Amino acid sequence: MSEVNVSVLPQQVAPENRKQRPLRVALFGFGTVGSSVARILVDSRPEGLELTHVFNRGVARKRVDWAPESVVWSEDADAVLKSDVDVVVELAGGLDPAGGWVRRALDAGKSVVTANKKLIAYQGVELEKLAAAKGGHLKYGAAVAGGIPVIPGLEQGLSGDRIERIEGILNGTCNFILSKMEAGAEYTTVLAEAQAKGYAEADPTEDVGGFDARAKLSILMRLALRVEVNPDEIVPRPITTITAVDFSYARDLGCTIRQVARAERTGGAVAATVGPMLVDLHSPLAWSRGTENMVIASGHYGGDVVFSGHGAGGQPTAVAVVSDLLALAHGSRRVEVPSEHAVVSGEFEVPHYIRFLVKDRPGIVAEITGALAKEHINIRAIVQKPGYPADALPFVVTVEPCKSSALQKALGALRTMDCFLVEPLDLQMLE
Amino acid sequence: MSEVNVSVLPQQVAPENRKQRPLRVALFGFGTVGSSVARILVDSRPEGLELTHVFNRGVARKRVDWAPESVVWSEDADAVLKSDVDVVVELAGGLDPAGGWVRRALDAGKSVVTANKKLIAYQGVELEKLAAAKGGHLKYGAAVAGGIPVIPGLEQGLSGDRIERIEGILNGTCNFILSKMEAGAEYTTVLAEAQAKGYAEADPTEDVGGFDARAKLSILMRLALRVEVNPDEIVPRPITTITAVDFSYARDLGCTIRQVARAERTGGAVAATVGPMLVDLHSPLAWSRGTENMVIASGHYGGDVVFSGHGAGGQPTAVAVVSDLLALAHGSRRVEVPSEHAVVSGEFEVPHYIRFLVKDRPGIVAEITGALAKEHINIRAIVQKPGYPADALPFVVTVEPCKSSALQKALGALRTMDCFLVEPLDLQMLE
Repeated sequence: MSEVNVSVLPQQVAPENRKQRPLRVALFGFGTVGSSVARILVDSRPEGLELTHVFNRGVARKRVDWAPESVVWSEDADAVLKSDVDVVVELAGGLDPAGGWVRRALDAGKSVVTANKKLIAYQGVELEKLAAAKGGHLKYGAAVAGGIPVIPGLEQGLSGDRIERIEGILNGTCNFILSKMEAGAEYTTVLAEAQAKGYAEADPTEDVGGFDARAKLSILMRLALRVEVNPDEIVPRPITTITAVDFSYARDLGCTIRQVARAERTGGAVAATVGPMLVDLHSPLAWSRGTENMVIASGHYGGDVVFSGHGAGGQPTAVAVVSDLLALAHGSRRVEVPSEHAVVSGEFEVPHYIRFLVKDRPGIVAEITGALAKEHINIRAIVQKPGYPADALPFVVTVEPCKSSALQKALGALRTMDCFLVEPLDLQMLE
Repeated sequence: MSEVNVSVLPQQVAPENRKQRPLRVALFGFGTVGSSVARILVDSRPEGLELTHVFNRGVARKRVDWAPESVVWSEDADAVLKSDVDVVVELAGGLDPAGGWVRRALDAGKSVVTANKKLIAYQGVELEKLAAAKGGHLKYGAAVAGGIPVIPGLEQGLSGDRIERIEGILNGTCNFILSKMEAGAEYTTVLAEAQAKGYAEADPTEDVGGFDARAKLSILMRLALRVEVNPDEIVPRPITTITAVDFSYARDLGCTIRQVARAERTGGAVAATVGPMLVDLHSPLAWSRGTENMVIASGHYGGDVVFSGHGAGGQPTAVAVVSDLLALAHGSRRVEVPSEHAVVSGEFEVPHYIRFLVKDRPGIVAEITGALAKEHINIRAIVQKPGYPADALPFVVTVEPCKSSALQKALGALRTMDCFLVEPLDLQMLE
């Protein structure tokens, strides 16, 4: 009988049993994170944990000489799932086959620790219910912002607050690209560098398109805003539309540009979005450099709390995994976070930056300002820097806080104008 | 029988009992934090918690009309301690009589939630043992950096790492004063403003002398570095020696000045100190403004993790208290952090900033550089800004990383020099 289900009471681990033998841990996936987890377990020998199994396809080439001889190296997932391991650490990622392994482990009353943001974003609520029903635990501290303890922070330290807004830099690849562009580099050059360094995939869509960040945001929304949302309902905007011109104009406005994932609960409504935004240079969001992650939780009582650090990478993510394992070994249980299903809108009321790229002719500004006025959007500033050619002229209009829907309507009305060389780019401005 | 000790097993709360009735909570102290805690409990009605008692001296004048009628308002600590409350929330502060109440509550098998940094710094280890022996729990998430979930972050999210260094801005009063001085204000003016705003006491020694921060640092050292230290062994340095001249020189060096509490474990040795230090303008420590707090934990595996937010104030501190209460209500238990007693030194090896204020005469620099050379301390820069009078001339020497003890020896050798108008000021430079 495994240690995590000695009792018929789902959330109970009898201390005397905990002392008897350590939790038997199986790693599913022995890549960067998996081997870092093993390394910490072997080097630090945290009390109450024993690495017993490693599952990986073609496991022979994964085998390392520094692991204890007792570790079973296997490429038979079934056999490991049927063994006497207490905890399955799922590090394969993706919905399939990882989801099946997690489900079977939980179904057998084992606990699961995972770094799989996609699985938790799409099926977390259901998997947690399965875990509770079968007497195991599901922990996923590594699924969002890897090495930064945002999830324990929200579950434990901020559980007494009512979080009203969450903003984060949740994708290290985008942050690497945008902070390099801030320093003057071109998108394609930086993307190539990110790919060479292993920060970006050959097909970078998941990252630069905002899909990775929206999965993570949906997890944070459940823990912080306590709403269950389908990640697909969050409409991401890609960072690929950002050019050097935008960084130049942003700087003149005292801002820089970051990929921000943000969600807020105002009244009964829940809004969420992911995309490039202008952030004030004095805002914490502007501090993050390179592949760093950051989360700002804004509480009704406690105000803003900022968490930042290394969001990804083998070792930081491994720390989050081992911390979850230790919590299981110590019988720590999560503070249950009540949540309810919610429909997400993309409706925010913030100032916006709108960059136009036009073939210049008289009357353009009049038409644009007219369309904005029609939607009762107040203009804050019109900025046109010198030095650009008239046949490809970039200029910027910033507007006072307005609803996203009103702005979209105004921009829609401009679509018939013949002077735009690319579609106008509108970005939220975070102050 | 109270809920937190239904079982003879110290760390167990039977879920079926948890569901039966909420934890009965007594507040000891109904000042800013106490009334904020009550407000959250009354307004948010978190599941599993019921405010049943309020103890305060002269409680009649504290009574509020928004609390449930069932709440017992008392000025008889004994009676409340002998009642059927499950958790005592101690918000009186100080060692006495608060320590006695906490001890008696734990002795009776009740749990205690406290924001009392002094009590935890000096007696935390012993009180935790008492709690464990009697079947209660002791939680103190509000004792350090109030609204910022540093303690849950260290206990839960970073437990899998080996934290090697901790640096923090732990005293909001000093940060308020120094960030105002950075903007040009004079110490005495800002202190008066801080006192008027209620940020500083009439006698500000506890804050500006570094005593408050060292108590908090010692708590973080146990959780992060896993060493038990006597706070009195940490030698604090006051911020009162800092002048406008230092901010001016700091700026030229790309730095500002903050009161920093820092501790590190290198090899077998543990070093800790609290005092004003030069921090790089690009360092997170320089970001904190006003009364904000910040903690940077540097892990062997996960690198730097930054936590920041509102360290003090009624509501942020109350959030930490309610979060601890919720953790108790949900039967969450702390990941036990093994720790061992350690002797603390003040020995760091970092670059230093040394500011001299002299009545100028020939040969001063030669004598100073000679004394530093004798201790094998390499000079990085000598900076003397124009515009100061020769009879009260400030200038700065910065030195390459050297041991604190070597620097003190060199400065000791200079003590016989007749030209110093004040004692040379040496500050650690954090890079």
